[in-house]
Amino acid sequence: MDLKALVRSIPDFPKEGVLFRDITPLIGDAEGFEELVEAMAKPLREQHVDLIIGPEARGFIFGAALANALHAGFVPARKPGKLPYETMGCTYGLEYGTDELQIHVDAIHPGARVAIVDDLLATGGTALACAKLAEQAGGTVAGCVFAIELCDLSGRETLSEYPVHTILQY
Amino acid sequence: MDLKALVRSIPDFPKEGVLFRDITPLIGDAEGFEELVEAMAKPLREQHVDLIIGPEARGFIFGAALANALHAGFVPARKPGKLPYETMGCTYGLEYGTDELQIHVDAIHPGARVAIVDDLLATGGTALACAKLAEQAGGTVAGCVFAIELCDLSGRETLSEYPVHTILQY
Repeated sequence: MDLKALVRSIPDFPKEGVLFRDITPLIGDAEGFEELVEAMAKPLREQHVDLIIGPEARGFIFGAALANALHAGFVPARKPGKLPYETMGCTYGLEYGTDELQIHVDAIHPGARVAIVDDLLATGGTALACAKLAEQAGGTVAGCVFAIELCDLSGRETLSEYPVHTILQY
Repeated sequence: MDLKALVRSIPDFPKEGVLFRDITPLIGDAEGFEELVEAMAKPLREQHVDLIIGPEARGFIFGAALANALHAGFVPARKPGKLPYETMGCTYGLEYGTDELQIHVDAIHPGARVAIVDDLLATGGTALACAKLAEQAGGTVAGCVFAIELCDLSGRETLSEYPVHTILQY
């Protein structure tokens, strides 16, 4: 199946000059979505992953689907103020300023094998924050998996400490 | 498996007087998460669902998992400004004021059988907005499924036009 044919390119979103890769037609196609999830799960199957971390919000879509596919638990990484219990956080750089992602302090048990899952690998800042959170909690990062990679933005360099797998490259 | 034992109750979140039902320990448990997703999928298995709508953000977790379990596509319903392509919206009431959820105009094809999936049934306003969006697009709502129901908040009355299924009641 040609998964790229189901990705819609939208110019000037979210701002002028950016060509946005819209995965909603792909995940709206039952077969396409399943094939994509299976392709993302494949490189992790031998890794005995205990937990998947997915960052808010599109990371929840692929993270939850992969958790079920890999018989792993799912850990949402959220913006400050969203998680109800005690949290630990990691800040990461944006184009202007910084942002923070948090997980619950008991979300990852020491020794857990963790995979980071998101829709898109751009600069890699969000995924790196998730990986650092996993390590702070005593886990090991078994790999990072993304549906789409924007190759010009060098996310693989940001994540050079970890195995990185992407399905559709642009 | 006692799924309720994996739900954590947190007093005074997000504000004083509210007892928040935190599902993160449940979805962080691989077996618990799978059992919950299967319980949510079961009432929809005979319904030949084409598409699942899940509202931002926790609805993405269960919506995506159920879409794969039911061989359906997934449609994210998002806050204004988040979706990149042309959208259609539905406003719904909050305790103070209103909010809006949007889907892409081509997310649901006429005649599609759609299920609404979210973590929590409280007042039902968010789910009703999703159902109305599905109908505006020409779809039929086959049912609404929630992991948790807060029975005091009468969400079933709000959704009385549709079959409603919940797994854990409080």
